[in-house]
Amino acid sequence: METVKLGMLGLGTVGSGVLEMIENNENKIRNIIGRELSVKTVVVRHPEKHQNAATITKLTTEFEEVLNDEEIQIVVELIGGIHPAKEYIEQLLRAHKNVVTANKDLIASYGPELAALAYENHCDLMYEASVAGGIPILRTIVNSFAADNILEVKGIVNGTTNYILTQMNQKHWAYEEALKKAQELGFAEADPTNDVTGKDAAYKMIILSYFAFGAQLKIDDFKTEGIDTLNAYDVSQAESLGYVIKLVGSAKVINGGVFVDVAPTLVPEDHPLATINNEFNAVMVTGKAVGDTLFYGPGAGGLPTANSVLSDITSEVKNLIMGTSGHAFNTYQSEYVPADPDNVRYPYYLSLTMPDVSGQMLKFTRIMADIKASFSQIVQAPIKDEGIAHVAVITHELSQSQLAELKKQLQQADSIKLNAAYKVLEN
Amino acid sequence: METVKLGMLGLGTVGSGVLEMIENNENKIRNIIGRELSVKTVVVRHPEKHQNAATITKLTTEFEEVLNDEEIQIVVELIGGIHPAKEYIEQLLRAHKNVVTANKDLIASYGPELAALAYENHCDLMYEASVAGGIPILRTIVNSFAADNILEVKGIVNGTTNYILTQMNQKHWAYEEALKKAQELGFAEADPTNDVTGKDAAYKMIILSYFAFGAQLKIDDFKTEGIDTLNAYDVSQAESLGYVIKLVGSAKVINGGVFVDVAPTLVPEDHPLATINNEFNAVMVTGKAVGDTLFYGPGAGGLPTANSVLSDITSEVKNLIMGTSGHAFNTYQSEYVPADPDNVRYPYYLSLTMPDVSGQMLKFTRIMADIKASFSQIVQAPIKDEGIAHVAVITHELSQSQLAELKKQLQQADSIKLNAAYKVLEN
Repeated sequence: METVKLGMLGLGTVGSGVLEMIENNENKIRNIIGRELSVKTVVVRHPEKHQNAATITKLTTEFEEVLNDEEIQIVVELIGGIHPAKEYIEQLLRAHKNVVTANKDLIASYGPELAALAYENHCDLMYEASVAGGIPILRTIVNSFAADNILEVKGIVNGTTNYILTQMNQKHWAYEEALKKAQELGFAEADPTNDVTGKDAAYKMIILSYFAFGAQLKIDDFKTEGIDTLNAYDVSQAESLGYVIKLVGSAKVINGGVFVDVAPTLVPEDHPLATINNEFNAVMVTGKAVGDTLFYGPGAGGLPTANSVLSDITSEVKNLIMGTSGHAFNTYQSEYVPADPDNVRYPYYLSLTMPDVSGQMLKFTRIMADIKASFSQIVQAPIKDEGIAHVAVITHELSQSQLAELKKQLQQADSIKLNAAYKVLEN
Repeated sequence: METVKLGMLGLGTVGSGVLEMIENNENKIRNIIGRELSVKTVVVRHPEKHQNAATITKLTTEFEEVLNDEEIQIVVELIGGIHPAKEYIEQLLRAHKNVVTANKDLIASYGPELAALAYENHCDLMYEASVAGGIPILRTIVNSFAADNILEVKGIVNGTTNYILTQMNQKHWAYEEALKKAQELGFAEADPTNDVTGKDAAYKMIILSYFAFGAQLKIDDFKTEGIDTLNAYDVSQAESLGYVIKLVGSAKVINGGVFVDVAPTLVPEDHPLATINNEFNAVMVTGKAVGDTLFYGPGAGGLPTANSVLSDITSEVKNLIMGTSGHAFNTYQSEYVPADPDNVRYPYYLSLTMPDVSGQMLKFTRIMADIKASFSQIVQAPIKDEGIAHVAVITHELSQSQLAELKKQLQQADSIKLNAAYKVLEN
């Protein structure tokens, strides 16, 4: 049986997972693709740290040993970050090597550019593992929604923040406490900035929007709000109103435009996304024909992510066998038209503090009436600190323009402080 | 732009959905596959009943008009049932036409045989729509689990029974009442036998087992139990014990063998499958590397099923463009080895009635002790009719052999009646 030789850049948890899966599932892989897979060369910074792997594969510090090896047909990039991963991938594609990567930062920032380079060089660039670790969402959108009109794709696409939020929801911990625990257990990194500010989720929404709508967005095209300013008060207030706060990334077609955002969101407790806990991810795809579908699985982790890398590798091997490399992973292209803010309408949860004196609620309700907003639920919490009243409100639908005006007017009415304004999902 | 011409057999709700989607999503389809799709000829029994469709396509009663049309490269079979669908598909494959079908009865019964015929004739047979309507589960297993070792595939794969069970759970209706309502609303057919006896779900489990384990099962290889004997008493008893009764199809690797069954099952109320309601379906795939993943969507319906048919059509068009037709939809092949009944162990819910006189529970607990079974929960219901006590028990794990022995001994102890024995899922 022929052997397909692979090169790999980086050997962290995902890389080790790839080696482990190729070794453990040798027979099934042979059975399905009719080839053996062999990782010939792995480029690492410190070969001495990887003595176990060294028994089955060649370790080197020299990228050129992969780049210039004629036998290597597929290279797996797992070093992460933009530089030098981008330059490596460019060189590999120019050398007509097929590339598989799990690098969401790079793909979100330069995906279409790198895809074009792959196409010019008649080779493939695949990146299933870049979104939602173990959930095969990108290939599913490509293969199974080609003839449907996707109306919305939304979900929980960052495991670290979902772990932290699950602890905050279930144990009523403060954010700092939940973050610390997540770090101790390895669910959050020492520097969690990219996760907790929503940036990581935003990168994934860029890639999902590209597949779902063919639209090429940049990270500054939409609002990203993390969980680092989320308050335990709002978590429990949301709970008492029948909601769970989740970090939801959402991309939705609204009157011909696309509205994308990443933000803490109130999810009704019987909504499918409310039940996604801990480090798990879930992506809901709503098609005009198919309706609501949901894909759930581990969002990260060495082996789950390695499985997505291997789904790319086995797809690529099929392409090599059939001589069909050189077709873009996603071929759907469409101009990005942002949705008109007047048409983007959601109910909002507003968390306010105001002096506990008469006339304040009147002032607030006047502002709401002024922007033509109305209430769905309103709760003045019994807990007051030092003459400050906490008020939580769920509005009926507000357009983005109304919301902006509301924020402006509340800022001017300086006795009332808007601590949070979170979107509310409907069932 | 080139046009790919299709033929279609049958024009019910799914066929109409296919025509509607091709018409509505013309631009996106062109954008993604670089071809136009056109349904040239549809074979129907009564052309006069389909006047709307007639404006865009040719209707005929003659199968040969599709079979002998050189222009038609792909034929969609939507007449259902085994005969004459099987004979039609055989003739089409021999005429080197690629076939897409949603026919689960046929694929579950003759899938591998028809796949071999397709292979001999260098053409394709695809059937994504045969399992779980709008959920793209088969292609996902093929593409995204090729290098993982699937340990279990289980789920709610029949929308009719799930709709009935949801009503029984939520409204505490009896089975007959819920069935009648489902029939009125169109969620159950006038003759619901195939659905309510579990046969439809069993067909789907055969297909899922073939994809997940490469194993070719027949319907008599495993036990199928429907919901037609399910009691409202057991539904509410399960609820009070913290479970929801669902019709679960399950196929699991146990010590190198495969155990498959379809049966009413107690699902813990916080298990992902417990939240799947009404006509929705969900399939959980557990991979050794990837862990638990879940795919959720509409289980039936014209447009969702049409979307799965179109995912096959667009895949086939790619094959035609690249000249890669003639590779089986599922290439994983493995001998079916049934699991040893001594190794198949689950907790069971037992629903018993016995005369309300002393000594009966002693008799029952002696039998349990005799087969070395033990209890996890036991409830004697306060409601008694005419001197009959109802007892509900959840056991610790019982092997299939122990369960068979328990049933035998209870039958001999003729004062105690075992009304139901349902598997209990663990979280």
